[in-house]
Amino acid sequence: MYLLNGCRKDSVDITDRGFQYGDGVFESLEIVNGQPLFLSRHLRRLALGCDRLLIPAPDPALLADEATTLCSGKTHAVLKIMVTRGPGGRGYGQPTHIKPTRLLGLYPFPDFPTCYQDSGVAVRFCNYRLSANPMLAGIKHMNRLEQILARAEWQDDSVQEGLLFDQNDRIIEGTMSNVFFLKDDVLYTPDLEQCGVAGIVREIIMESAIRLAIPLRLEAWEKLKALQADEIFLTNSVIGVWPVKTLEGRVFETRGLTKKLQAEYVRLRYEEV
Amino acid sequence: MYLLNGCRKDSVDITDRGFQYGDGVFESLEIVNGQPLFLSRHLRRLALGCDRLLIPAPDPALLADEATTLCSGKTHAVLKIMVTRGPGGRGYGQPTHIKPTRLLGLYPFPDFPTCYQDSGVAVRFCNYRLSANPMLAGIKHMNRLEQILARAEWQDDSVQEGLLFDQNDRIIEGTMSNVFFLKDDVLYTPDLEQCGVAGIVREIIMESAIRLAIPLRLEAWEKLKALQADEIFLTNSVIGVWPVKTLEGRVFETRGLTKKLQAEYVRLRYEEV
Repeated sequence: MYLLNGCRKDSVDITDRGFQYGDGVFESLEIVNGQPLFLSRHLRRLALGCDRLLIPAPDPALLADEATTLCSGKTHAVLKIMVTRGPGGRGYGQPTHIKPTRLLGLYPFPDFPTCYQDSGVAVRFCNYRLSANPMLAGIKHMNRLEQILARAEWQDDSVQEGLLFDQNDRIIEGTMSNVFFLKDDVLYTPDLEQCGVAGIVREIIMESAIRLAIPLRLEAWEKLKALQADEIFLTNSVIGVWPVKTLEGRVFETRGLTKKLQAEYVRLRYEEV
Repeated sequence: MYLLNGCRKDSVDITDRGFQYGDGVFESLEIVNGQPLFLSRHLRRLALGCDRLLIPAPDPALLADEATTLCSGKTHAVLKIMVTRGPGGRGYGQPTHIKPTRLLGLYPFPDFPTCYQDSGVAVRFCNYRLSANPMLAGIKHMNRLEQILARAEWQDDSVQEGLLFDQNDRIIEGTMSNVFFLKDDVLYTPDLEQCGVAGIVREIIMESAIRLAIPLRLEAWEKLKALQADEIFLTNSVIGVWPVKTLEGRVFETRGLTKKLQAEYVRLRYEEV
């Protein structure tokens, strides 16, 4: 079910620059009992993305209203909010008058086994290398061919996520998630100045670490260092926090700190509901 | 006017991955007297792009048929052919059964002053730096935020194109065109192994240079070297060949070789009509 500029629609104008060029940004949110979780954080990142792409950001109050309307009565679902530069002609030059398209869509919540949260997931390394792009790094824009090509590297259902390297062979993120490493009670996550998406749960976990006095460092690791971590976990707004059970076959224990941060995320998530 | 999978339509399904993720490729062709110019070359590049993105390429005979039907009776226009991965669910994983969307659209031919072809255009350098991405380099995919952000750097109508550098400060292409330099009777154009779009007119010019025994080298130049070129010109399927009259204010003469290659392109173009 979709709300396109406030109206129920199943299709979008062919001239929309979101379709022509991937010219827009999006957010994916978990819906619990009609409530979009961490909505204000998502709307803030959406506005930041619009700003970076020079798209006039829609009124966050309007987006929040439409989100609440669309999600009303939904027990558990995913809400995707998209904002594109709207209709325009052929060519990369922007329309003189930009009329952004806002689109909210409801999707079923994925049927993840509970063991993914409890005992963790199996992860691999991708061969695909993310390109450096400081202008687009951090934001969740609609140019997603990199993630699509990386995700196409495996069909094996027993592997839940793949980690992506940058062109200097440093791990940046998963195809759909952010990654954290624990080593000697210090929490590490890659800095995203050159590439990667700065996830909302990543932000929440970083704040939680600071609050819980867990030392936090922004560092991108190479393959060997990653394989020597004590614990690894993945985050995004739909999966929450998934411990990594295996990385390229090497088994990781989910010890205290992952559990502690995961519990803190669960607590904050309940506060939202 | 659009043909979406063979039917007249103005809108595309919201679930289309072309819209969700820019998950597709496209071609822009000049139409003269109902004839799409260099159609077989464009269809070949389109198929190559599909192949790179793991999208099953539509039958080129079908695309050619639809192109001819759509363009029938059009004196001078632009045809855009798009192929996307088609409808799919949320997430970067590909649908189990890919049903590509093919979309052909007709656009008015831009109203370029004839002096652009004759005496040349004014060009600037862009601040935006293209990111290196060997998996996506060369093909004309629908992830075009880089070109949009670069093109947004100037609003001044007296400047017709901007040249883009890679992250190593070497010139790769224009925002919408390929670039050629002439120096001491040798023709240079950047190699596109890491970034850039391998244009159809670029290919035709390279073949022409070889046929006309003009020495050709694939080299990406830095700013200073570019400013010391004897001649510079730009190519794409809509503009054809545009000599560069000024680059960042420095004036360039359009001497023999640009005119010779331009004339050769005009000749081949007439053969197509």
